[in-house]
Amino acid sequence: MQFTSERRLDDGVLEREFTLGEIPGILWTPESAAPAPLILIGHPGGLHKMYPRLVARARHSAADGFASATIELPGSGDRPRSAAAEQARADLRRALDAGEPVDDEIADRLVLPLVEKAVPEWQAALDALLSLPGIGGPVGYSGGVISIGTRLAVVEPRISAAVLFAGSFVPRAMFEEARQVTIPLHVLLQWDDEGNDRQAALDLFDAFGSEEKTLHANMGGHTGVPQFAGDAAARFFARHLK
Amino acid sequence: MQFTSERRLDDGVLEREFTLGEIPGILWTPESAAPAPLILIGHPGGLHKMYPRLVARARHSAADGFASATIELPGSGDRPRSAAAEQARADLRRALDAGEPVDDEIADRLVLPLVEKAVPEWQAALDALLSLPGIGGPVGYSGGVISIGTRLAVVEPRISAAVLFAGSFVPRAMFEEARQVTIPLHVLLQWDDEGNDRQAALDLFDAFGSEEKTLHANMGGHTGVPQFAGDAAARFFARHLK
Repeated sequence: MQFTSERRLDDGVLEREFTLGEIPGILWTPESAAPAPLILIGHPGGLHKMYPRLVARARHSAADGFASATIELPGSGDRPRSAAAEQARADLRRALDAGEPVDDEIADRLVLPLVEKAVPEWQAALDALLSLPGIGGPVGYSGGVISIGTRLAVVEPRISAAVLFAGSFVPRAMFEEARQVTIPLHVLLQWDDEGNDRQAALDLFDAFGSEEKTLHANMGGHTGVPQFAGDAAARFFARHLK
Repeated sequence: MQFTSERRLDDGVLEREFTLGEIPGILWTPESAAPAPLILIGHPGGLHKMYPRLVARARHSAADGFASATIELPGSGDRPRSAAAEQARADLRRALDAGEPVDDEIADRLVLPLVEKAVPEWQAALDALLSLPGIGGPVGYSGGVISIGTRLAVVEPRISAAVLFAGSFVPRAMFEEARQVTIPLHVLLQWDDEGNDRQAALDLFDAFGSEEKTLHANMGGHTGVPQFAGDAAARFFARHLK
């Protein structure tokens, strides 16, 4: 992990860009000297485009005493495209534009290779991040892609709680994996999310094996998560990562 | 409204039992002198049986600066039974014990007459309560029976926000009424509630006309609402009743 830039935000949060091999990422740490629990900030891909929302979430977490980090997804932002993923994305777009139901086969082609590739990258990032001074444990995962968060919750024992954003199509195979999740979960669902299948999100919530799981459904579209829902997610981490 | 008893709880909350005509009720007010917003505490009937949970909710609300009040439901506790309601309750019990789906017709017989009778009583209680010194506005409704809360939200303009507990059978007629609700709603659903229909609860949530509505679903049965879910409901009232 190599740091490539460093700046102090006006609220005292230290923002550092880094690369992990070919993968760009950003780390935000609060001002306090004590080792901070870490939240991995998930997103749909495209760090530059997503930056305003990512930094807002990181500042909120820093105010609660948490470090946050994120990495670019395979095939997004400045990373090389995959022809197969681009094709699947185009097929998805076409189905949505035509108002057609999204084929399981499209969701499989779009999401499963992404999960396969991204999850080991997040794990490698975790190795590097946890070796830094100022970053302690426990670790939480927050956000989308929900299939990446689900797989991480199953395979990565260092993640002890997750806020999952039900805002992307879920391959059927992930429902079986969801049953193996046992960590506390806080699932956010936007009731009118235009690029999502509400019933699939409810089914996935039902499938999670966790003894403590909570669904917070709010009105509005994909990007309309209300402030109070973000606050509630922050309180979930405060309960589980301290 | 006549007060029949008065005692000060150890946290300073003043608990007063009252009667409103034939209807018994309880009023809890916080120690502070300023007029407090009021939360009407809904329940499934049986003030004596429910008392431990009711007083816990009232103390929590008092700590947030709210007065709380509740009244006995028609046909429950010490109030005269209705033969028709008892028959409907027995039919419901029989269907549940047999593992059969609950007929709409049973839910109609059980719930609709209760709503018809209870809602004007809650409104009369509200008239009396809001005339007391120490009780101001705004007013919230909190709890079950969800059909009573729904009807109150439609017909009673003094209620400005509601926490509704989706824990009872909902007559089909209530779905139409739900569309007329416009106040902010916070709906609690116990995912494994044994005496409830989860899909009907989700459908009812979908039907509410409110621009701000949030569903909090948690694991466990009817009486297993986790502490953090109660805290979240309290924060909803803090946002809307102050």
